[in-house]
Amino acid sequence: MRVVVAGAGTIGSLFAAHLARVADVAVLTRRDSHARALNEDGLHVSGRSDFTATVRASADPAELGGADLVLVACKGGDLEPLAARLAGHFAGATVMTTQNGLGAEAIVAAHGDWPLLSAVTFMSGTRHDDTHVEYVLDTATWIGPYRGTTRAEAEEVAELIRSAGLKAEAFDDLRPAQWSKLIFNATVNSVSALTGLPHDFHFAEGMLGDLVHALVDEGKAVAAAAGVALGEDPWEMNVHATQRGHAHYPSMLEDVSAHRPTEIELITGSLVREAAEHGVPVPLHTALYRLVKAKEASYS
Amino acid sequence: MRVVVAGAGTIGSLFAAHLARVADVAVLTRRDSHARALNEDGLHVSGRSDFTATVRASADPAELGGADLVLVACKGGDLEPLAARLAGHFAGATVMTTQNGLGAEAIVAAHGDWPLLSAVTFMSGTRHDDTHVEYVLDTATWIGPYRGTTRAEAEEVAELIRSAGLKAEAFDDLRPAQWSKLIFNATVNSVSALTGLPHDFHFAEGMLGDLVHALVDEGKAVAAAAGVALGEDPWEMNVHATQRGHAHYPSMLEDVSAHRPTEIELITGSLVREAAEHGVPVPLHTALYRLVKAKEASYS
Repeated sequence: MRVVVAGAGTIGSLFAAHLARVADVAVLTRRDSHARALNEDGLHVSGRSDFTATVRASADPAELGGADLVLVACKGGDLEPLAARLAGHFAGATVMTTQNGLGAEAIVAAHGDWPLLSAVTFMSGTRHDDTHVEYVLDTATWIGPYRGTTRAEAEEVAELIRSAGLKAEAFDDLRPAQWSKLIFNATVNSVSALTGLPHDFHFAEGMLGDLVHALVDEGKAVAAAAGVALGEDPWEMNVHATQRGHAHYPSMLEDVSAHRPTEIELITGSLVREAAEHGVPVPLHTALYRLVKAKEASYS
Repeated sequence: MRVVVAGAGTIGSLFAAHLARVADVAVLTRRDSHARALNEDGLHVSGRSDFTATVRASADPAELGGADLVLVACKGGDLEPLAARLAGHFAGATVMTTQNGLGAEAIVAAHGDWPLLSAVTFMSGTRHDDTHVEYVLDTATWIGPYRGTTRAEAEEVAELIRSAGLKAEAFDDLRPAQWSKLIFNATVNSVSALTGLPHDFHFAEGMLGDLVHALVDEGKAVAAAAGVALGEDPWEMNVHATQRGHAHYPSMLEDVSAHRPTEIELITGSLVREAAEHGVPVPLHTALYRLVKAKEASYS
């Protein structure tokens, strides 16, 4: 099995290192220096796993050879240019997106006719440097068919990921899970980014809990109008996640703390656009969307 | 004329230094070390004024002697303990509040039967250290009667402040001005504190302008329900202030940047409570109130 992991941030590095134990893994990086470091030093995982994987890496997709599976693991804001770099390569491969929010599959679909799988991942980690990633939350990746694929192929990839030591599950239809995570993320990430609070008990009780609950309710109304029966209840996901015993720092909080662009457009932005399409009022998500965009504008 | 300025932050220092040029000014500080510094070094004003005033200062109100006018100039969150320290002192004096938001007069009224004047101030400055304040915005202080006082007495204090080189104006009823500033502050301060943006052009145009406009509209609905005919239009105040040519950093942004408690309770909090009392829905101000409270909770 030849796997190309496109994007070597936290999630891409976690997939690449683990999959390298059971498959031939090549990593597509953005920087040449990153590819050189991976080729020379391998990719070290600490935390819930502890090993160093041997991977091939290049910033040029033409140097990576063929692939049976391309796992696209960049952040949403980097997806369009990354998908453009994949165009014309990896004929015959199945391409799987893993981005938060909605619309990642359509962006990739516009750059090639690969069969597509759709995924959302709940695992998390911390990228320490180009060749060292820490595996923090060992939660699952959920996979479903999107274009020219079946549940059986989703199951095959899930089995590959499980055999590499990560958690994964296949579904007939990913949308219920994708929307549950969308509503969860649109709520938790933007509130965390604006308040500076990690995802802790404040999100599940008192005044902030009331706001989080109202944001989840707006999201559920959009899902209902879009004809999506949610998977997990986003409010219960929120409460459950705050009870893990340690505070999790959502990626959007890390992004604004480091003055990096956030995923607000693909997460809350896509929810607000779906709401407009279906005529559902989402004043609170709209306000948070505008506030996070303004926070990005404050960097300069 | 014997004036006691209670509270020696930015606004208190600006009043004390300027008034010391035309009146006998004593300053009530919280810290002994602050009083000692003022007694030894005087109070230097830079920026739009440039002089050093001689003031008497003490952290003990009993040491300050009598007063004709007590100007209460602390931040809203410090008002209750400061008013408690004034209790039993300054018989015969008129006491004037200058706090943002609503309800400052009632807090002071509960601690003594002084005649009361109500004020809002639009001037601003930067406190550099215990004995140096910079005078930044030379905008006015507006004064009106509150309890046992008349427009004539408000005018007398306004004239005193003008003779000291600051701007001031008296009104029959301060509520229209107070509410205009309340709505302006509840909107601009909380958006600035959450986004990190100074009060610049973003607040008057585009997506953030839309949010600011919606927040102002919520505030106007509360004012109408409370039977207050606004003075200046808060949206026009907002647009005008963003056109000053330099970005102003609202005090609430400075507070959250320094991890200090904010005035959210007295500003947005009082607007949200008035809204509840009059049955006016204010979902956006309620959301911002909860987010700023959560930001304060993130300090620890």
